[in-house]
Amino acid sequence: MAQSQSSDSVVSAALIIIGNEILSGRTQDGNLAHIAQKLGGIGVSIREVRIVPDIEAEIIDAVNTLRAKHDYVFTTGGIGPTHDDITAASVARAFDRPLIRHPEAYRRLLAHYKQLGVEINDARARMANTPEGATLIDNPVSAAPGFKVENVHVMAGVPKIMQAMLEGVLPTLAGGARVMSRTVLCSLPEGEIAAGLGKAQESFPTVDIGSYPAYAKNEFRLSLVLRATDLQLLDEATDRVIALIGELGGKSELLTPSDGN
Amino acid sequence: MAQSQSSDSVVSAALIIIGNEILSGRTQDGNLAHIAQKLGGIGVSIREVRIVPDIEAEIIDAVNTLRAKHDYVFTTGGIGPTHDDITAASVARAFDRPLIRHPEAYRRLLAHYKQLGVEINDARARMANTPEGATLIDNPVSAAPGFKVENVHVMAGVPKIMQAMLEGVLPTLAGGARVMSRTVLCSLPEGEIAAGLGKAQESFPTVDIGSYPAYAKNEFRLSLVLRATDLQLLDEATDRVIALIGELGGKSELLTPSDGN
Repeated sequence: MAQSQSSDSVVSAALIIIGNEILSGRTQDGNLAHIAQKLGGIGVSIREVRIVPDIEAEIIDAVNTLRAKHDYVFTTGGIGPTHDDITAASVARAFDRPLIRHPEAYRRLLAHYKQLGVEINDARARMANTPEGATLIDNPVSAAPGFKVENVHVMAGVPKIMQAMLEGVLPTLAGGARVMSRTVLCSLPEGEIAAGLGKAQESFPTVDIGSYPAYAKNEFRLSLVLRATDLQLLDEATDRVIALIGELGGKSELLTPSDGN
Repeated sequence: MAQSQSSDSVVSAALIIIGNEILSGRTQDGNLAHIAQKLGGIGVSIREVRIVPDIEAEIIDAVNTLRAKHDYVFTTGGIGPTHDDITAASVARAFDRPLIRHPEAYRRLLAHYKQLGVEINDARARMANTPEGATLIDNPVSAAPGFKVENVHVMAGVPKIMQAMLEGVLPTLAGGARVMSRTVLCSLPEGEIAAGLGKAQESFPTVDIGSYPAYAKNEFRLSLVLRATDLQLLDEATDRVIALIGELGGKSELLTPSDGN
């Protein structure tokens, strides 16, 4: 799809997943798929993901590289109360801003722990630290907020909390043209359809055509996925691909169209 | 864990996941966890992952940045016969080597398709293209090989094929000290244990101590994960953490030790 970047109206985003437990293979990330689908629904496309360890220099490098390159950056992980939660301090350094105790964040934590009948200690109070000038991102699950600095959105890593935070963030984002998709199942192997598919891609330069083989129940299954912001072109390209499969003697099945990503 | 990088004997790796379908959220990557665990078993630690789209410049940038920074680089995806499979050409550019038709790779494809009674066409023959001087990585599933250039290993994205390729690659890697891990379930919330855990981390600078909260069946569950290459220090640090939980009135459970990652 290198040949077929869509129009400038697509708003781009990058995701930084912070956490040694993802890199070690112990925990499987499930946040990317959720965030990509939610952002796609408002016309924001994730164009790059970095998974980095809990090391300040790595986080700073990723934040500074990606915030310059994309409209939005999102981070997940590393905003809890323990010693390995270094995201807030790292993002402050990335922006060259002091790390402060955010008064409203602290007020929310105080109220939350008072309600639980639990003392707020130094470790818990750390969760109110943000770069100076940050805007809070609400956490309706466990109070400790995320925050936003310029185009960088810092969210929790625990999926339930991250998802709740993202719901609050979505209405604040300026989305672009929504990318719509069509998926065509193809009975032919990739090698049979590749030449024709490449020509279809050339004929529809603003439609991204991807070919994704997979094994399902020990059978090869080929999904052809088309994406575009222009519905009419998308449908024309899809018809072309379905016709191609038929011309080559194969069977196709158009899956139920998804409006999302 | 920023404060506690292990000894230099740890061999580092980076993974580049190539594919728009992962970025769009349509497909969930399952290769990272598998690769991380297999590499961990021979003393190679994944320290960084990048997920990039099917865009040549993005692939080149990731390959060149990461091969200079880590002992090994692995890529998954983009080595099939269709127009969106641009990994081999991109890696050739990254190394400033011509893309050639690799004679042995082509021989394997010819034999494979002859056996299937299928014609080898231009699209299928493309899968024999590698950067000049590349070493092949066997594909016992579907013949079309991966390849290695210097410290960069190019593998398929389809998990079944990638896993078969990796089995062939593992014996060729020079591993370092194996990182062993212990997982302690903790009944206390993070905020209660954070101060003591931070002190334990300071006492054991070569043991990485991570704190990972999660929701399981609507209950918070806190896993404390310790990692080290020195078994005695690992067990001492684990005992310290278990004692800490008891001192604070909590309950702990040491999960069955894993020799792997």
